[in-house]
Amino acid sequence: MKILALNCGSSSLKYQLFDWTNKEVIATGVVERIGIGDSFIEHKVPTKDYKKKIKYAIDNHETAIQWIINALTTGEGTVIESMEEISAVGHRVVHGGEQFNQSVLITDDVINHIGAVSHLAPLHNPANLVGIRAARTAMPKIPHVAIFDTAFHQSMPEHAYLYALPYEWYKDFSVRRYGFHGTSHLYVSKRAAALMGKNANECNIITLHIGNGVSCAAIKKGLSIDTTMGFTPLAGAIMGTRCGDIDPAIPMFMMQRLDVGPRYMDNLLNKKSGVLGITGKYTDRRDIEVAAEAGDSRCKLAIEMEAYKLRKSAGEYAFALGSVDAIVFTAGVGENSGLIRQKTLEGLEFFGIKIDKEKNMSTFSKHGETEISTPDSKVKVFMIPTNEELVFVEDVVAIIQDQYEDHTKYPYTFLK
Amino acid sequence: MKILALNCGSSSLKYQLFDWTNKEVIATGVVERIGIGDSFIEHKVPTKDYKKKIKYAIDNHETAIQWIINALTTGEGTVIESMEEISAVGHRVVHGGEQFNQSVLITDDVINHIGAVSHLAPLHNPANLVGIRAARTAMPKIPHVAIFDTAFHQSMPEHAYLYALPYEWYKDFSVRRYGFHGTSHLYVSKRAAALMGKNANECNIITLHIGNGVSCAAIKKGLSIDTTMGFTPLAGAIMGTRCGDIDPAIPMFMMQRLDVGPRYMDNLLNKKSGVLGITGKYTDRRDIEVAAEAGDSRCKLAIEMEAYKLRKSAGEYAFALGSVDAIVFTAGVGENSGLIRQKTLEGLEFFGIKIDKEKNMSTFSKHGETEISTPDSKVKVFMIPTNEELVFVEDVVAIIQDQYEDHTKYPYTFLK
Repeated sequence: MKILALNCGSSSLKYQLFDWTNKEVIATGVVERIGIGDSFIEHKVPTKDYKKKIKYAIDNHETAIQWIINALTTGEGTVIESMEEISAVGHRVVHGGEQFNQSVLITDDVINHIGAVSHLAPLHNPANLVGIRAARTAMPKIPHVAIFDTAFHQSMPEHAYLYALPYEWYKDFSVRRYGFHGTSHLYVSKRAAALMGKNANECNIITLHIGNGVSCAAIKKGLSIDTTMGFTPLAGAIMGTRCGDIDPAIPMFMMQRLDVGPRYMDNLLNKKSGVLGITGKYTDRRDIEVAAEAGDSRCKLAIEMEAYKLRKSAGEYAFALGSVDAIVFTAGVGENSGLIRQKTLEGLEFFGIKIDKEKNMSTFSKHGETEISTPDSKVKVFMIPTNEELVFVEDVVAIIQDQYEDHTKYPYTFLK
Repeated sequence: MKILALNCGSSSLKYQLFDWTNKEVIATGVVERIGIGDSFIEHKVPTKDYKKKIKYAIDNHETAIQWIINALTTGEGTVIESMEEISAVGHRVVHGGEQFNQSVLITDDVINHIGAVSHLAPLHNPANLVGIRAARTAMPKIPHVAIFDTAFHQSMPEHAYLYALPYEWYKDFSVRRYGFHGTSHLYVSKRAAALMGKNANECNIITLHIGNGVSCAAIKKGLSIDTTMGFTPLAGAIMGTRCGDIDPAIPMFMMQRLDVGPRYMDNLLNKKSGVLGITGKYTDRRDIEVAAEAGDSRCKLAIEMEAYKLRKSAGEYAFALGSVDAIVFTAGVGENSGLIRQKTLEGLEFFGIKIDKEKNMSTFSKHGETEISTPDSKVKVFMIPTNEELVFVEDVVAIIQDQYEDHTKYPYTFLK
């Protein structure tokens, strides 16, 4: 059984073909610059170490999907004889609103619901829908499944997802915390439980997903009860270019100072802030660590600020949970920056957290899942490489086999 | 020695006359509606149980001060024979910017500095300056001292006070965390240390000032290292009418939905949010607790939300500090709501915090300083009635006697 996973942006379409029988990725690639000129497709076949980038005029997502089918079934990069071999398609959808608390089989009704919450993710949901429509047209006979970034966090209680704003804003405009990175938090929290020889439903876990985007989650007995991203992915931790939590009076103050409107300000907070805003030049934390090492004071500051905010997030979730079994670092920075991990959790022995400093500093993503706390640490600390794609594929398989009730009951292959 | 304390708003002037020799308040009152019609003065003499409200036409702060002098020196409410008995005047100033990390003797230079940061507190600093100028004119021969809400938090390190925003916003527009309620956090943290028989410089303390305005602070070895209010008093905890922390994208989203400008939005977040926004009708937490008890679901929600956010703030400061000696509740709600205190800290035995539930629920401001943790709690928890006025008066005395170096070294009377 082969599953095609699609992640459709406004001018790009990423794809991955997964062979469920052998549990491996057999092709992966991306179509870029759809409809904006200079478009191309980059196709890779990991098993053959094959990689090719070809320029085409690709005017729309329908054409993009035809080129993906072409890449998969013809030429040097062929991995399947025909599209008949594909059993189902999984579509990443950023925002499911309050409607979806799990992955679902896509129907016309589901499409309408995704459209209905598009104002909550105006850059993503409309693009996701374009991809879904194009793929259903190209592959009408097989099931299509939607996997939402928000679904895992729908278990948050009301007191965690509501803001202290006029209540009508929730009722009339759906203003509340949703949270994102759901598949990643799901995966690493369940893996952490497995590493402790436990069921996720028995554990309290704090997950720190630190990539270009950053979010932390508090997971109580297997269920997300809080997460740092909010109404949008702007909130919470300090990120590559996003400011995270700030005094909410600042945007209004700066709009008046700079004489700019709300859209412009929103863009500044999303694209020109975070560690880019602090350092003035870098978003990549590797560049920042190198520059800090060489003496750049603003880069040193960015590291201190990012880690300090993560430390505070870990603290707030420790108290939200009441007790903690494990803290997990994941995603690009979380998997590879021993420095950020150390600064986030050092000196917390009082609260039962004890990092093995040497082991932590020599642990990278390539080493795979690693316990970086000391044996006597009451709270275990792990580095766990995330695998959102695996959750994605397993959700598709579970849905098309009609075996999926909810994530707490489904026997994912990675629970052991 | 008698000290006159003034707290000047745009249309009001609060005053308090303190007898330093006998350590008691000998008169207190307020002039309201200055320059906006229907103005009046309310004058109280606690020692005589005297209270009188008189309507006058009071057009400006100069006239208001003359009426205060009049109330103090003539008629039934007389407490001093002449203003010659007053040794000094203390002025509350909301925003000291980065210039002032302690109380100071007011000079022309100080006035210029306060004016220079008026854009950071446009509703308060200009009014504070009007009061200072009027009082200096009326009482030119005695020293005037400024006490800042922000000064105590000026010990925050750079990584705690900077935001992950374009760095120029800090340099060009002074956008950073300042923090407020400084005299309250100073007072209750030093009292908590005293109750533990320690010097504040030896303790790590979390202070939760919960009134209509709410702020929490992390105080490490006597110095504030972080606080929840930020660039303005809008940030952090959920308050009576202020939203506290929200996804910073929400104001821009709602400005576009409601078609309103930045000033209007700022007003909504400051005046129509917080527990008022959640409940739709109450700002007073006593009303909310009564209504919740009677079954009002939105009032129950407001209590859960307020306490949950305080719990998260306590958690983030626990991790920021690394270890905690004491947590202190203070101000109207913190001193009187056993329910909020319990929900904030219950179930935290894992982290060394254990509340005596019964004692906590029966502890109110009128009982005075009370330890509400169990004897075996690793972290002590206290209810301590705040006394900002005392810090205020002591700072004035210390400054005019030229004994004040900084708050960590000054021998306040309340250190024992």
